[in-house]
Amino acid sequence: MDKKIPQIGDMPPEEFRQYGYQVVDWITDYLKNIENYPVLSQVEPGEIKSKIPVEPPQKGEGFDVMFSDLNDIIMPGITHWNHPGFMAYFNSNSSAPGILAEFISAAMNVNGMLWKTSPAATELEEVTLNWFRKMLDFPEDLWGIIYDTASVSTMHAIAAAREYAQFSFREKGMSGRSDTPKLRLYCTAHAHSSVEKGALAMGIGMNGIRKIPVDDQFRMIPEALDLAIEEDRSNGWYPFCVVATIGTTSSTSVDPVDSIGAICTRENIWFHVDAAYGGMAAVLPEMRYHFKGIEKADSIVVNPHKWMFTPIDLSVFFSRKPEILKRAFSLVAEYLKTGEGSSVQNYMDYGIQLGRRFRSLKLWFIIRYFGVEGIRNRIKEHLNIAQWLKDEISRDQRFEIMAPVPFSVVCFRYHPTGKSENDLDDLNEKLMNKVNATGKLFISHTKLNNKLVLRLAISGLRTEKQHVKKAWNLIRETVELDL
Amino acid sequence: MDKKIPQIGDMPPEEFRQYGYQVVDWITDYLKNIENYPVLSQVEPGEIKSKIPVEPPQKGEGFDVMFSDLNDIIMPGITHWNHPGFMAYFNSNSSAPGILAEFISAAMNVNGMLWKTSPAATELEEVTLNWFRKMLDFPEDLWGIIYDTASVSTMHAIAAAREYAQFSFREKGMSGRSDTPKLRLYCTAHAHSSVEKGALAMGIGMNGIRKIPVDDQFRMIPEALDLAIEEDRSNGWYPFCVVATIGTTSSTSVDPVDSIGAICTRENIWFHVDAAYGGMAAVLPEMRYHFKGIEKADSIVVNPHKWMFTPIDLSVFFSRKPEILKRAFSLVAEYLKTGEGSSVQNYMDYGIQLGRRFRSLKLWFIIRYFGVEGIRNRIKEHLNIAQWLKDEISRDQRFEIMAPVPFSVVCFRYHPTGKSENDLDDLNEKLMNKVNATGKLFISHTKLNNKLVLRLAISGLRTEKQHVKKAWNLIRETVELDL
Repeated sequence: MDKKIPQIGDMPPEEFRQYGYQVVDWITDYLKNIENYPVLSQVEPGEIKSKIPVEPPQKGEGFDVMFSDLNDIIMPGITHWNHPGFMAYFNSNSSAPGILAEFISAAMNVNGMLWKTSPAATELEEVTLNWFRKMLDFPEDLWGIIYDTASVSTMHAIAAAREYAQFSFREKGMSGRSDTPKLRLYCTAHAHSSVEKGALAMGIGMNGIRKIPVDDQFRMIPEALDLAIEEDRSNGWYPFCVVATIGTTSSTSVDPVDSIGAICTRENIWFHVDAAYGGMAAVLPEMRYHFKGIEKADSIVVNPHKWMFTPIDLSVFFSRKPEILKRAFSLVAEYLKTGEGSSVQNYMDYGIQLGRRFRSLKLWFIIRYFGVEGIRNRIKEHLNIAQWLKDEISRDQRFEIMAPVPFSVVCFRYHPTGKSENDLDDLNEKLMNKVNATGKLFISHTKLNNKLVLRLAISGLRTEKQHVKKAWNLIRETVELDL
Repeated sequence: MDKKIPQIGDMPPEEFRQYGYQVVDWITDYLKNIENYPVLSQVEPGEIKSKIPVEPPQKGEGFDVMFSDLNDIIMPGITHWNHPGFMAYFNSNSSAPGILAEFISAAMNVNGMLWKTSPAATELEEVTLNWFRKMLDFPEDLWGIIYDTASVSTMHAIAAAREYAQFSFREKGMSGRSDTPKLRLYCTAHAHSSVEKGALAMGIGMNGIRKIPVDDQFRMIPEALDLAIEEDRSNGWYPFCVVATIGTTSSTSVDPVDSIGAICTRENIWFHVDAAYGGMAAVLPEMRYHFKGIEKADSIVVNPHKWMFTPIDLSVFFSRKPEILKRAFSLVAEYLKTGEGSSVQNYMDYGIQLGRRFRSLKLWFIIRYFGVEGIRNRIKEHLNIAQWLKDEISRDQRFEIMAPVPFSVVCFRYHPTGKSENDLDDLNEKLMNKVNATGKLFISHTKLNNKLVLRLAISGLRTEKQHVKKAWNLIRETVELDL
C-alpha cells in the first residue's frame, strides 16, 4: 500500500483499516499483558519531554513512526489506571465496551449541543440516564444530564444553588451590591476539594465556606449544621447550599443524608449530594441504607467513570429542579436557534459547556454489555474483597484500621509500638513510596485526625482477590524486610 | 468463540480483538460511504427514544446485538459532522489519526490530573502545546493548557481576569460586600454566547456585560471601548476584562486586537482573545495580519477541535499570566499531594476540573501525521474555496454577500427584488430548511443587522471544492424550482 500522506483530505480509508487493526491488536495485547507494566510510571521529571523534538514536524510523518514512538517514548511515562494493581485514589477503569464506544464516538464526532445536531445523542442521553437512575433506585422526579467530571457537576450544583437564592445574580451580578447578604455554603472538612473549587469559581470565597464538624466516623453532625445555620443567619449570612457526601475521598465516610436533607428542606437551602464514588453502591439493594433521604436532594452527582468501568470522562448530574439550572445558564444566540421548540430539550441550555461529546453511547454499551446484574456482581465483589482486607489488617497487630470501611476503600497504617506520631507518619510515607516503587502496586495516602493514613482502593474491573492478596503480602514483606 | 459474558472482569481479550476489528471495519466503511447518509438527521422528536426499552437490561446482552442496534436505532438519529456536506455552525471534524489516538487514550484511561498519575500526559501536553504555539507564531512567553471546550477556556479567562482585579475574591467572595465596585466586562454583540455564559457563571451578571458598538464590518470600535471604560469608571464601575474575537461566530469578523490590546495595557484590564475558530488561520503566514497585537493578550483560546480535524473535545488556552489562573483555582487536598514539588507542574492546579483526559495524544498524532505543511495546505484550501464561493455568489444578481469573508465562512442571502425585509427573512429561512431537508447539505443561519443571513462554513477535512460547488448548485436549484 502506498503510504504517502495525501495533500488534502484524511488518511485513505484502507490505510485507516490497516492501522485500525494494528491499534486493536496493540490494545488487546496491552490489556492482556498489562500486569507486565509497572503500575506507577518510574520516569523522572522531564524524562519524557527530553525525548520529543522541540520543533513540530513540517512534513507529515505517517502513522508507523508515531506508533513506534508510542511504545518507546510514551509508554514508560504512563501510570496504568487499568492495571489491577492500581489501588490509589478512586481507581477508575475503562472496560472493553466503553473503549469501543469511545472509538465509535470519536469517528462520528457528534457534538450534541442541540437536539438537532444529533437527535440520537440527546435522546440516548435521556434514556440511559433514566436507566441509570432506575439502577440506583433514585427518585423518579430526577432529571439528568451528563457532564465531563464531578468537579464540573458540583460547580453546576453550586451555580443552581446560587440562582435558587433569588438575588437576581443573573441580571445584576454579585459584586458591588450592598443589597445582598453574604452567601454561605456548608460541607465538612472531608468534602472533596472540588466543592471548594466550585465555590471559589461561583464567587463564594473561602470565607463563604463553613466546615461543619464531623463525628468519630468522619460524618457530618447534623446538629452542628443546624446550629451553624442559625448562628450564621443571626450574623447576617445567607445560607444557600449544603453539600453532603456519600463516600468521601479520604475515608469514604457517609454523611447522614436524611437528617441533613430535613434541615435543608426546613430552611429552604439547596441540598447537593456528592456521591461521585459511593453512588454506584446504590446498585445493590443491601447498600441502599446509605442513601436514605436521597429524595430530599436537589442535586446529586454520580460518576460512572469512577466505579462503573467507563472511560474518563462521564459524570452524571441529577436534579429535581432542572429549571433552576436552566435559569442560571440558558442563553440562546441567534445562530443556535432551531425550530423544534419545547418538543425537544437542548442540553446546552443546562450548563457552561456548549460543545458536548456523545458520551451516552458508552453508558449504553456498558450497561447493555454487562447488564445490571453484571455490574452488581462486580461492585459486590469489590465490597467483599475490601471487607476481607479489612479483616486481615485488623488481625495483624502491627497494623491498624483507621476508618470504617463502608465501601471498597481501606484506610490503614503501619503502627509498630513505641513510635511517636511524627515517626509513624514518616514510616508510613516511606512504606507507601517503597511499595509504589516496586511497580506492582500503587496506593495513595490521606490524613485523618492529622495522622498520615494509607488508602487502598478496590474498584478496578481487573482487580481480583488475588491482586489484593498480593498487595497485602507486598505491604507486609516491605514492612518486614525493607523498612 | 464462547461469547458468554464473564461473571467478573472485562470482556475477554480475544473477544475484544474480534469486536475491535469489526468496529474498525464499520468505521472504515462509515467514513468511506459517509456521503450516502443524509447529513442532517431526518428523524422526528422522540423517534429514537421510542425504539429503546424503558428498562435497563438485567442480563448482559453481548456486543453483537448492541452493534446491530447502533446501525438500526442510533444511525438514523445522527447528524453527520464528518460529512463533507456539513457546512453549518463551525463544522468540526475528526481525522483518522485523531480517531485512533482517542481509541488508544480510552484504552489507557489515563487521568492526567497530576504529573505523577501519568508523566507522559503532562509532558506531552507541554510539548505539543509548544508545537502548536510555534505553528501559530504566537509569542514565546505563552504558557498553555488543554481544556475540553472553548466555553470552559473562556470561563477560565474570566476567572483569571476576576482574580487579577485584586479584590480578594478568593478569600472574601463577591457577595454582600460594600467594599468592592461592580465589575464590568466588555465585548461586542458578536462575541460568542459563551462569553456571556462565562460571565454569568463568574457572578458578573448580564448588567455587568457591556456591548461595545461595531463598525460596518462587525468589528469592535476601539474608540467606543475607550469611551465606555472612561464613562464606566466615572460611574463607579470597575472595568476588569475585555474580550476580543478573531473570527466571530456569526460573520467571522475580526476585532482589532492591536488597538484593543493597547487600551487594555494602558488601563491594566485583562485582555482575552477568543480565536477558537479563527486562530487556526495563523498557521498561514499570509493570514497573520489578523493577529497583529496578539502579544498584548493575557489569554487566548484556539480550538483544534474546530478547524484542525481533532475529535471533540480539545480546546487550547494560552496565557502569559498562568500564576493568576493558579491563584484563582489552586487547592491541593492532602490526598492529592505528591513529592515532586516544583520540578513538575500538576495541571489540576490551573482549572476547575480535577479529572483530565489524555487529550494531548491526539494533538501529537494529528500534527505528526499531517505535518505543519499538511495542516497549512488544508486550511489554505478551505480559504480558497470560500473566496471562490463568495465570488460566485457576488456574481449572481439574485443573491447578496452579507459580510466580508476573512476566513472560510460565507454569509449571504437570497434577495429577489421587491420583497420586504420580513419576506426576505422568511424566504431565506425556507430556503435553508429546504436545502437541509435534502440530506445533501446542512447550513445554518444567523442575524446580521437584524436580517436573517445564511452561513456556509467550509472547514471540513472531507469538504472539497466539488462539494461546495454542489452545495451552491443545490441552493440555486432550490431557489429556481422549489421556493
